Amino acid sequence: MASKTFFAVIAGVGPGTGRSVALKFAKTYPVALLARKPESYADIVAEINQSGGHAIGIPTDTADAASVTSAFDKIRAEYPDKRLAAAVYNVGAGFAVKPFLDLVPSELSAALSNATGLFNFAQATLPGLLESAEAGAAAPHPPTLVITGATASLRGAPRFATFAAGKFAVRALAQSLAREFHPRGVHVAHVIVDGVIDIPRTKGWEANGGAEDGKISADAIADSYWYLHTQHRSSFTQELDLRPYVEKF
Amino acid sequence: MASKTFFAVIAGVGPGTGRSVALKFAKTYPVALLARKPESYADIVAEINQSGGHAIGIPTDTADAASVTSAFDKIRAEYPDKRLAAAVYNVGAGFAVKPFLDLVPSELSAALSNATGLFNFAQATLPGLLESAEAGAAAPHPPTLVITGATASLRGAPRFATFAAGKFAVRALAQSLAREFHPRGVHVAHVIVDGVIDIPRTKGWEANGGAEDGKISADAIADSYWYLHTQHRSSFTQELDLRPYVEKF
Amino acid sequence: MASKTFFAVIAGVGPGTGRSVALKFAKTYPVALLARKPESYADIVAEINQSGGHAIGIPTDTADAASVTSAFDKIRAEYPDKRLAAAVYNVGAGFAVKPFLDLVPSELSAALSNATGLFNFAQATLPGLLESAEAGAAAPHPPTLVITGATASLRGAPRFATFAAGKFAVRALAQSLAREFHPRGVHVAHVIVDGVIDIPRTKGWEANGGAEDGKISADAIADSYWYLHTQHRSSFTQELDLRPYVEKF
Amino acid sequence: MASKTFFAVIAGVGPGTGRSVALKFAKTYPVALLARKPESYADIVAEINQSGGHAIGIPTDTADAASVTSAFDKIRAEYPDKRLAAAVYNVGAGFAVKPFLDLVPSELSAALSNATGLFNFAQATLPGLLESAEAGAAAPHPPTLVITGATASLRGAPRFATFAAGKFAVRALAQSLAREFHPRGVHVAHVIVDGVIDIPRTKGWEANGGAEDGKISADAIADSYWYLHTQHRSSFTQELDLRPYVEKF
Repeated sequence: MASKTFFAVIAGVGPGTGRSVALKFAKTYPVALLARKPESYADIVAEINQSGGHAIGIPTDTADAASVTSAFDKIRAEYPDKRLAAAVYNVGAGFAVKPFLDLVPSELSAALSNATGLFNFAQATLPGLLESAEAGAAAPHPPTLVITGATASLRGAPRFATFAAGKFAVRALAQSLAREFHPRGVHVAHVIVDGVIDIPRTKGWEANGGAEDGKISADAIADSYWYLHTQHRSSFTQELDLRPYVEKF
Repeated sequence: MASKTFFAVIAGVGPGTGRSVALKFAKTYPVALLARKPESYADIVAEINQSGGHAIGIPTDTADAASVTSAFDKIRAEYPDKRLAAAVYNVGAGFAVKPFLDLVPSELSAALSNATGLFNFAQATLPGLLESAEAGAAAPHPPTLVITGATASLRGAPRFATFAAGKFAVRALAQSLAREFHPRGVHVAHVIVDGVIDIPRTKGWEANGGAEDGKISADAIADSYWYLHTQHRSSFTQELDLRPYVEKF
Repeated sequence: MASKTFFAVIAGVGPGTGRSVALKFAKTYPVALLARKPESYADIVAEINQSGGHAIGIPTDTADAASVTSAFDKIRAEYPDKRLAAAVYNVGAGFAVKPFLDLVPSELSAALSNATGLFNFAQATLPGLLESAEAGAAAPHPPTLVITGATASLRGAPRFATFAAGKFAVRALAQSLAREFHPRGVHVAHVIVDGVIDIPRTKGWEANGGAEDGKISADAIADSYWYLHTQHRSSFTQELDLRPYVEKF
Repeated sequence: MASKTFFAVIAGVGPGTGRSVALKFAKTYPVALLARKPESYADIVAEINQSGGHAIGIPTDTADAASVTSAFDKIRAEYPDKRLAAAVYNVGAGFAVKPFLDLVPSELSAALSNATGLFNFAQATLPGLLESAEAGAAAPHPPTLVITGATASLRGAPRFATFAAGKFAVRALAQSLAREFHPRGVHVAHVIVDGVIDIPRTKGWEANGGAEDGKISADAIADSYWYLHTQHRSSFTQELDLRPYVEKF
């Protein structure tokens, strides 16, 4: 089966969206899961391996180019004969919600490092994705890079200045990469997640007045990422928004 | 099976996208197909009915409110006990590609009637979609209105002034409807089709230098419309772009 | 003086923005003022003529091509030797603020006729603006078409579906005209007026919690229109937003 | 005269736009000019002082918070009794035009530092601008922060990935600051400069086929910045595009 000779890599794996995306892609591909701390992916790696899939986890700081290089050396050692089918960048941005004059420069740096992380991750994955594109029909789907965005990718807001700066920069990279690599057969999609995601960390948060399904299902996000991966190359989606039916926008 | 008690309606059915969308939705629902001329849908109705699905065709000018009312009277007579699961507005816009000073007022009217058609179609379908939303879990998927847009939905261009006017107006309606009806459980999605669609009428057209898959597959568009219909209500997509990997944008 | 051999035409003149724009442009040019009803411009024509300027008023329905043709015949008869320096389209759109299912087709038509009006006005003024552009340095400023937009030009909203449809369509025309006529030397600018304008009709409206300067000064709008007209052709602005400092956006 | 008790500060002063902006604002205010190297502003400081204005220059690296703090200490020492009327951020971004896989991380950092520079400059100037806003009618115009953007502020492009990342991030900050500080009376405007500017460095560049006025006049940019500064607080412009009449967009 084609999928045995391909793998996927997911950066920014934790108990929320990353977990759902990992489980979704692991149904078809072996998956390499990256997070800064092993405790973020350890359970998920175990869950996938116990249920008949194949997963590895590698502690990686995507904002650090050397850490990314080292992670991909390990991935290549683990999967010497596999090609890269899909890469997902789901790394969270530094998130300091404050009046502008209360922010400090390190909070801007933390937010901008979300773009640095994508830069490093894209440099590490695009060569493999291009190789898979050149392999053509052998790949089960067009090789894909999916990137997680947010409301703040499109809109600066009071108290969200630094977060928006990081997310706008990520979107700029995503758009530039799509325009450069689509013609070479690699699908680059940016997803605007506009709402609170229903994950352990947001359990207590009230979103949309507590309406049923008022927070975004992480599994539903994973479904959309997988759908993007399966799109025919004659009809790539570059940007997608996802929001609860009750969300104001 | 839930799908037996639901149906879909598709306006703007012809040998291209409309046909692919009709065949796709007919796998799950009985479908009512609308087009100005019966010859636009006759073969497709036959094809669906012969292959075990159920389809009816009704000659309808969506730009004419009375014609739309009459069509939905016929649909209700045909499906007295079924609820509306999905409505697709795929009607083509008047398309006069000329320098602005060569255009005549009737060419603007023809283009704007694309918005009038959506207005009439939305007024005819939203009450049924709302009923299905209130029926809640009985519906197989959140009730959905999908609307076909184009490059010109986002961008005015020389020689495309009237076409863009119509398509911008359609997008305004789509966005307004999403903001009004999402909270009531009806999914309204607008799809920017950015490229030449690979249909009989465009056979001879050269798109993207004649590259393989350089025109958008109508079946791939239908897949995306269906995917939108199946999205969980916690993560609706309001707008999606679709373009060939080789398309400049 | 160059300005004696040029004139300006302003459509949509009434006691608010139109009046301020008329007075502003009348400081430099003779002005032809158009409105459906003479009572909309009569006082302004008198005010300009009494204070040493020159103005004429012509009852015109911009949504009716024949009415526009007739108005420009009168203008040419009045100003046989003058060239057109600037044209301002400030016509109000049909404005029915209701839930979508309460709207009737004529309310959509009324809204879309805002685009029809611009179409007719642009067809009547662009030939003269092009002539002035070809006259080159003789014109005091690059010939200009300024178009009034609104919040709804960029954003569909519940209860504003038809209004947004008209305003999106106007923006599509504005953008298409800019892309076609900028290279020929005619400046086409679209202004997003985002807020309540401080005019007689809105006297009683509370905007922005009644804050001082919480409504847009019509004279300030006129200043911006004039500024756009004076821009050097190496740096045309195509789109501008104008909103009160206290407006949420 | 009010203007004697106010001053302006301009960051990113060199022989192009910065010079034109400095000369323009110096007609009304004493100006503090910042650039990394004194040779960038020395001639301009002299020119202003010799022609009856008042200017000082301070070597400053806006991307370095300590350098900015030190510069504003000097400014306060120089102008102990003056209030800040206007601040202009015109600092150039790191500009590496290459295929994505040829870029190195330091080229991304250089581009992102354009946002860091704005962050530092805004933190240093907003307290003074707020003070001037509170002073109300004493200020000749609403206190203003003008920020230079580019085509790449709105659009990622192949070979421009890092430049776009920096410029998107700057726009995110500008928009967030506008939404936070407009209601407090400080005008924050972002200017999309879409085209080649006609400055010494671009003398040999062919833009728009060498058309007359095919490059943007730096003086025309300065006129627009000044116009933005003079806007009434009931009608602030948050974003403006500027491009040559012959520019494709």
